[in-house]
Amino acid sequence: MSDAAKLSVGVIGLGSMGMGMARSLARGGLNLKAYYVNPKAVAAISDVGKGVSDHREAARDCDILVCAVVNAKQTRDVLLSAKGAVHAMKKDGFVISCATMAPDEGRAIGALVHETGRFYLDAPISGGPTKAASGQMTIMASGTEDAFTRARPALEAMAAKIYELGLEIGIGASFKMINQFLAGVHIAAACEATSFAAKLVLDLHKVFEVITASAGNSWMFENRVPHILDGDYSPKSAVSIFTKDLGIISDMGRSEKFPLSLSAAALQMFLMTAAAGMERYDDASVARLLANIAGVKLPEPK
Amino acid sequence: MSDAAKLSVGVIGLGSMGMGMARSLARGGLNLKAYYVNPKAVAAISDVGKGVSDHREAARDCDILVCAVVNAKQTRDVLLSAKGAVHAMKKDGFVISCATMAPDEGRAIGALVHETGRFYLDAPISGGPTKAASGQMTIMASGTEDAFTRARPALEAMAAKIYELGLEIGIGASFKMINQFLAGVHIAAACEATSFAAKLVLDLHKVFEVITASAGNSWMFENRVPHILDGDYSPKSAVSIFTKDLGIISDMGRSEKFPLSLSAAALQMFLMTAAAGMERYDDASVARLLANIAGVKLPEPK
Repeated sequence: MSDAAKLSVGVIGLGSMGMGMARSLARGGLNLKAYYVNPKAVAAISDVGKGVSDHREAARDCDILVCAVVNAKQTRDVLLSAKGAVHAMKKDGFVISCATMAPDEGRAIGALVHETGRFYLDAPISGGPTKAASGQMTIMASGTEDAFTRARPALEAMAAKIYELGLEIGIGASFKMINQFLAGVHIAAACEATSFAAKLVLDLHKVFEVITASAGNSWMFENRVPHILDGDYSPKSAVSIFTKDLGIISDMGRSEKFPLSLSAAALQMFLMTAAAGMERYDDASVARLLANIAGVKLPEPK
Repeated sequence: MSDAAKLSVGVIGLGSMGMGMARSLARGGLNLKAYYVNPKAVAAISDVGKGVSDHREAARDCDILVCAVVNAKQTRDVLLSAKGAVHAMKKDGFVISCATMAPDEGRAIGALVHETGRFYLDAPISGGPTKAASGQMTIMASGTEDAFTRARPALEAMAAKIYELGLEIGIGASFKMINQFLAGVHIAAACEATSFAAKLVLDLHKVFEVITASAGNSWMFENRVPHILDGDYSPKSAVSIFTKDLGIISDMGRSEKFPLSLSAAALQMFLMTAAAGMERYDDASVARLLANIAGVKLPEPK
């Protein structure tokens, strides 16, 4: 951690993931500045670092810039617009880019960052807000060995598991998209199966018990079906995440000319759920959509 | 096991599951007779029981008849046709019916068995041939308490886990179908994601490592993707199992008037794979189908 103490890090984005990541970086001994569009979040970070009022200020003279915004467009705007943050960083600074995005977008943004003389690590994250806050995330990253070496104090402060997946920008993004692909399909499958089980008048608690011990289990079934059993659709992870991420997968499939029927079907289920007014609720709301359509009763909140 | 020793059991069906189940029943101390359409299988059982040349002979005067055929039609033919096996059983004997089938079919067959004075346990199985052979299967069963009590020596000889899911015939079948629903969708998803990862030129061994440690994991991803990595499509479980089982799910959805878009998409993928000549190969062949269509190379056999 003595190395970490010498490093200054800027964080842009203090949402459900970024806030925890910023705190983990400060706890890891890095010198923190942070910016977000929401001034309350900026104020909230002041106990462990310096909240600033502008993304360019967060990047000013820092060694490392962690970009924890939502998507490729925001990443590009924040880093590379006329008042882009990259230009304020140290001349040999580097960017840890965490937004989920198509590999093509990552490659394009990375190339533009490299043109300024700075470095770019394609470093999508997973694990959710709790692991972000405890420094226990998973990072699926690609970039040069040198980039990994220099980024290591920041990566280790944020993550329990750091996958080094290749030298080229875009590989990290691709791995993240494959994970989101499966996660999205499995959530939709868990919801379709559980609401259909309700239609068959099965005891849903027994369904959960049997399936989690059987070959039909998935990480997402185990994680999301309890939300249905509790009737609790407060957004641990919102429907809008998967309309976005399966949307990117759909774009990638068309761009690669590769048929992706199953993830396309799952995307339509999330879109239907969003269209029915549940975009900002938990993604297990896909089960509510189907139950509502079919007039099936799911468990009420306790 | 002293109780088991007094019981005589007939097994009809000595396929990949039935053969192991018959051996587990004999090992559990039951007095075994067995029949199958394949005379070699009948001969092979003679070290632990009596192979017979007719399904009615397998049932003759037995306490318990284990029906381990493939589907509802075979179950009905074997048990209830003019020369049906049920009529040869002891007058208060009962049937453990293991074929995967629609709940409606189970209810109809069960009612006809009950009309003859015998009993019927709706008892679909899971776990694969290895667990069948070692007596470690899972049984998802429904039926009266009395039926469970009387069937217990046979159930315990065959299974490590016996779920008692309700009093009514059809509940066991419903649970099995929900499991097959999820299993089928997850296999198709694992194949679609893995072949797409190959299209993205990702290292598939790393994909396996990252996904099995991430939120995109499923029991089926973990179990089937190694077949793709090894280029080994010898049938551990054939494509035809899921054209059958997702076909039943599709029938159930129409009969219940319940939309099942995701499992419908998965069914089409298994049908395409069967149509392309891979019906009798491992169900991970869905990945080969997509790779063949898109001109992507998957690993060759070692």
